[in-house]
Amino acid sequence: MKNCAKFEEYIPGISLLEIARKYSEKIINLASNENPYGASPKAIKAFQSFKDLHKYPDPSYKELREKLSEYTGWDFKNIVVGAGSDGILEAIFRFAVGEGDEVLLAPPTFQYYRILAKLSCAKIVECRRDENFEITNASELVTEKTKLSIFCSPNNPTGNLENFEEIRAVAESSKGIVVVDEAYVEFADKKFNFNYENVLILRTFSKAFGLANLRIGYAKIPDEYLKFYRSASTPFPISTAAERAAIASLEDLDWVKNCVENIKRDREKLFKFLSRKFKTYPSQANFILVKAKDLHIELAKRGILVRECSSFDLPNHVRISVGRKEENKALMEAIECLSP
Amino acid sequence: MKNCAKFEEYIPGISLLEIARKYSEKIINLASNENPYGASPKAIKAFQSFKDLHKYPDPSYKELREKLSEYTGWDFKNIVVGAGSDGILEAIFRFAVGEGDEVLLAPPTFQYYRILAKLSCAKIVECRRDENFEITNASELVTEKTKLSIFCSPNNPTGNLENFEEIRAVAESSKGIVVVDEAYVEFADKKFNFNYENVLILRTFSKAFGLANLRIGYAKIPDEYLKFYRSASTPFPISTAAERAAIASLEDLDWVKNCVENIKRDREKLFKFLSRKFKTYPSQANFILVKAKDLHIELAKRGILVRECSSFDLPNHVRISVGRKEENKALMEAIECLSP
Repeated sequence: MKNCAKFEEYIPGISLLEIARKYSEKIINLASNENPYGASPKAIKAFQSFKDLHKYPDPSYKELREKLSEYTGWDFKNIVVGAGSDGILEAIFRFAVGEGDEVLLAPPTFQYYRILAKLSCAKIVECRRDENFEITNASELVTEKTKLSIFCSPNNPTGNLENFEEIRAVAESSKGIVVVDEAYVEFADKKFNFNYENVLILRTFSKAFGLANLRIGYAKIPDEYLKFYRSASTPFPISTAAERAAIASLEDLDWVKNCVENIKRDREKLFKFLSRKFKTYPSQANFILVKAKDLHIELAKRGILVRECSSFDLPNHVRISVGRKEENKALMEAIECLSP
Repeated sequence: MKNCAKFEEYIPGISLLEIARKYSEKIINLASNENPYGASPKAIKAFQSFKDLHKYPDPSYKELREKLSEYTGWDFKNIVVGAGSDGILEAIFRFAVGEGDEVLLAPPTFQYYRILAKLSCAKIVECRRDENFEITNASELVTEKTKLSIFCSPNNPTGNLENFEEIRAVAESSKGIVVVDEAYVEFADKKFNFNYENVLILRTFSKAFGLANLRIGYAKIPDEYLKFYRSASTPFPISTAAERAAIASLEDLDWVKNCVENIKRDREKLFKFLSRKFKTYPSQANFILVKAKDLHIELAKRGILVRECSSFDLPNHVRISVGRKEENKALMEAIECLSP
């Protein structure tokens, strides 16, 4: 084993799914931030029509990257495709972070950042957040050794947009890479729209586009880092079938837009309801964070799965994905039944 | 960037495909070691029937691992599934190799080992091979710092089985991990069938099983390393559709067996033919290595792609995949035309 790495211990929790299955035949999954309406039917059709399973994918992913260039406005040459945002992050860590380097993170946030930083033998430096989870001091923490700073906006699991001024200050003061992970950006009012030579933007087809099963991420990599990214990226990150599904999704943006509108509308309804019962945080994503001890267990007993947040270092909080109308209704009814 | 890493420079070669397209409408690809007969029709059907693209895969991959346990005879609990052998190797490097560690390799071999070792800031130690590419001195090179030794058997691109006694000697003398990459084992007479607590066996569905597009690898990870592997592996390495295709393939082993028999039979015919023209190496895989300067260019002009081996540090050699009967015939005819 690496002498320097720290490994996150595996703590088997209570399997919520097991509880849910004991009590209920029908399971409602509001734990994974999936698009509850599914992928565009055109994407499903494109996926299912692929049959040359024995041939390696064309590793240029040219057609998908062209479509992404239209969709994002980013230069074609700066767009890379990866095995989910996870796969892109793994490649970034491979070329950018070594023993003794510092990685700036803003917990509570997506845990995979921390796991990869620990595996890279890096020193993790943590920003402070205020009571609304707003980052307050990120740029003060930048040092000569800061090789990578990662922000998730909107942030998982808290749901807020990150403070763009803080991210800009980090980008300006750091000689390292700044990653802005915009996995949930389609549900937000604002995206990080500033150009810096050291800022990498990460996106995914797993959330709004409803292609979570296929693990398709993409990113804008500035010129200076392209060579390093290429040398560190896995040779064939996605299958041709996945590429075709992503292309078809981008050709059916009305579907995505419609899903996003439904989710945003129902998010506000759910927020109002939950706020009356629990400490609830406003969200710019497709999920809502609430402070509520053991709610995940009570809901599992009613066949509804939500995400318990201990692994985000937020004990006594749960993250609830916005589902379809009828799923949200079932959730609200279940919560009503719990109330004394 | 990491201070310690070395990055393989990207050297854009002549695009053989471009040449081939200029001269020929029909392209025969004998460059990628794919199964030319394709995946089992049952696997294609299983793949195409999946439509829940919006749902994350079940990360336990239980059903596939159970089938793999039957197929390989390995314990269920020691089997992991990854995004190709590449993805499994990436995870192994993440937990096992850091700055200053030594990685023992046996070039000419699959280049991704070297790329990952360089990115990990490791010192690469290279075994010697004799004129038949037999490894002669691997175990002598093991030191206290040898964290990882990787052998590919049958070896890509040379085609020979590795010297099992040498691998065993490395496993016995090394405190580090020994990986035996058996990507092509279905085409070979022998597999590495010895149990060591530090030997990890890698396999893939990309070659004999004809599922290269889907990036499905698997491995036997001994007990001691399971915890580390889990902490370093990517959360959702393969899609459910890919899992189902792999399961269906394992339920249709006659298909694979038949493909393998055809390929082995045609490999011997091709070997006899090529031996009369070039220095040709016996192969236990689905490809044949020959020493022949510029053969790849001459064949590309006739619409046939083979793999030029400079990137394996074998200039003036080409690696030729065994194709379908008619493809091999076209290859032989093309080579006959080249002869003076």
